[in-house]
Amino acid sequence: MRIAILGGDGYLGWPTALRLSAKGHDVHVVDNGLRRRLHTEAGSDSLTPIASLPERIAAWRAISGEEIALTEGDLTEWAVVERLFRSFEPEAVVHYGEMPSAPYSMKDRAHAVFTQTNNVVNTLNVIYAIRDLAPGCHLVKLGTMGEYGTPNIDIEEGFIEIAHNGRSDYLPFPKLPGSMYHLSKVHDSHNIHFACRVWGMAATDLNQGVVYGIRTEETGLDDALLTRFDYDDVFGTALNRFCLQAVVGHPLTVYGKGGQTRGYLNIEDTLQCVELALTHPAQPGEFRVFNQFTEQFSIIELAELVQKAGAHVGLDVDLGPVDNPRFEAEEHYYNPVHTKLLDLGLRPHLLSETLIESMFAGIERFKGRALQAHILPRDRWRPSA
Amino acid sequence: MRIAILGGDGYLGWPTALRLSAKGHDVHVVDNGLRRRLHTEAGSDSLTPIASLPERIAAWRAISGEEIALTEGDLTEWAVVERLFRSFEPEAVVHYGEMPSAPYSMKDRAHAVFTQTNNVVNTLNVIYAIRDLAPGCHLVKLGTMGEYGTPNIDIEEGFIEIAHNGRSDYLPFPKLPGSMYHLSKVHDSHNIHFACRVWGMAATDLNQGVVYGIRTEETGLDDALLTRFDYDDVFGTALNRFCLQAVVGHPLTVYGKGGQTRGYLNIEDTLQCVELALTHPAQPGEFRVFNQFTEQFSIIELAELVQKAGAHVGLDVDLGPVDNPRFEAEEHYYNPVHTKLLDLGLRPHLLSETLIESMFAGIERFKGRALQAHILPRDRWRPSA
Repeated sequence: MRIAILGGDGYLGWPTALRLSAKGHDVHVVDNGLRRRLHTEAGSDSLTPIASLPERIAAWRAISGEEIALTEGDLTEWAVVERLFRSFEPEAVVHYGEMPSAPYSMKDRAHAVFTQTNNVVNTLNVIYAIRDLAPGCHLVKLGTMGEYGTPNIDIEEGFIEIAHNGRSDYLPFPKLPGSMYHLSKVHDSHNIHFACRVWGMAATDLNQGVVYGIRTEETGLDDALLTRFDYDDVFGTALNRFCLQAVVGHPLTVYGKGGQTRGYLNIEDTLQCVELALTHPAQPGEFRVFNQFTEQFSIIELAELVQKAGAHVGLDVDLGPVDNPRFEAEEHYYNPVHTKLLDLGLRPHLLSETLIESMFAGIERFKGRALQAHILPRDRWRPSA
Repeated sequence: MRIAILGGDGYLGWPTALRLSAKGHDVHVVDNGLRRRLHTEAGSDSLTPIASLPERIAAWRAISGEEIALTEGDLTEWAVVERLFRSFEPEAVVHYGEMPSAPYSMKDRAHAVFTQTNNVVNTLNVIYAIRDLAPGCHLVKLGTMGEYGTPNIDIEEGFIEIAHNGRSDYLPFPKLPGSMYHLSKVHDSHNIHFACRVWGMAATDLNQGVVYGIRTEETGLDDALLTRFDYDDVFGTALNRFCLQAVVGHPLTVYGKGGQTRGYLNIEDTLQCVELALTHPAQPGEFRVFNQFTEQFSIIELAELVQKAGAHVGLDVDLGPVDNPRFEAEEHYYNPVHTKLLDLGLRPHLLSETLIESMFAGIERFKGRALQAHILPRDRWRPSA
């Protein structure tokens, strides 16, 4: 299959490109280097020393004999998107190509405007390109479980049957997004749903939980293939950050009471899910939503798990609660459905102390690169007066 | 009250400015002249010959002795918004300042991107300005009933109690917007809801139906105060277009079967509703949604009403069904609640043959200015291959 991977230089985009290339697909990655640039501006960096995108692609060619095509360009520019679609003629698009950080989007007005403009415009460009240049192309879009927020009812996969005053309809699940970034993903979801309803586009929206892990089968083959590992306050996510903190001796940054419960999945499972979506595509006109995670944990449960695994390997891990910079419920009901990907054949890699210990080992190799000044959160959801 | 009216040069913005000024409020209008510019580019125009914004303001000063302040600027530019908030210190903002046309937004990709960027960014700028420069300011935002689409259940005012698997929650009503423009309004609603939830902003979202009418109490005082009247395929709306078509002898442009049912209201009632929202403000942290219309009609009912009123005054009106350029259900359930504004004291001006005949008279004066070439629809929701 000819598959374009948007955001193919990222934490998940790059391992996805490798996996699909390894499986024999014709892969074309697109990236504008935004994440690397934002790290440079902030003085932060990936824990893992990652090769440039052309270097990575050359390394993969040398190791596997497979060719990955490359566009270094910005998807908010129509000329970039149009050239990609005309020259590559993708049969599927895996769309990771967005600004993915809630704290970044909440820094101030300009960051909010950038986040929403960047994400909404590049997705509009993609759906128009599919409509006009590749009508049969299947869009696999990375969404986020954060679109739903924490309602007081079970969260369904994208839609819910609502009975009301003696009638009923199957309608989009209401959204309570928790940041300017999460809002941008809700906007995308509405735009894509429209393209399916009105233009007959086929789309799968993967509302993903928090991903953890430092290696995949392919990135582990050679250091030149390593994927990035963000542990800083802006781009790092909960479990990855805790593992890094444990290794470098920083108290775990548990925000507030730590009762915030979310869905989580192993990076290997992200690759499985994306592949399952691609090989079992949505039908024309279908807007299919999968809740993409395998287990749910509260922050404090994760912190205690990391503490316990740390004790096994001789790491003395402190739980250091910090003032919650976010505006979110710290104790709440949470029960999202996540059966559709299991029905397609997903076989989860569940979280265990062993797995956490293997993450410690992966981090240990590069711990000299860790910048402690970038661990504590700085961006507050409600700026003080 | 110090009230900023964004989009204060428009069909509704200008009469709202006059009404609030007449009631003794301190009014500041902001407009970038977008609508006039888009008409110039398209070769179309308002039926009514409207004065420039500075001329209108001067005429109002001469007639009423009241001063309306003016900013000619683009709300997507932060400098414009910041200067407005710092200098005027609004206590309320009435936000009409968006690109309001579904057909315009559906012309092509570039128009969709412009519509969503323009509307989302200017609203983000406004909510950040309120947060940082005028925390107590009440935002009265014009939304649209078109955000809901036509679900198969009763439409509530913004939120719905959903019972599911033995639990329940009061959640945002699901949205099925029918164009790139309507999508932009859904995006705005989510952003504003977030600002209320997280920053404690007070906002009223007026999900307005289709407005009709050619004059208000104040615009009728002098021709220099006339508000615009759009009848073209891009900016004109159903009943106004039908009345113009009846007067100039054009068959009524009933799209498809004409079973499309929507909420409607008189332009005088828009002014009443906005004033009611301002004088009964939302509370800090409250995101209040009012469905702002007084009656519902199907397109064919409106067309027949216009035909009947035409017969009374000697106009021979043909119903000329045209291929529906939109993608929408032409027969559907429709029962939206609209009691909150009535509860605040709204006294509707209902539609009648007499009222339509008075619109005919208002149109008759300027019918020599009507451009028949701009009546039939040109922008299709699903471009042919």
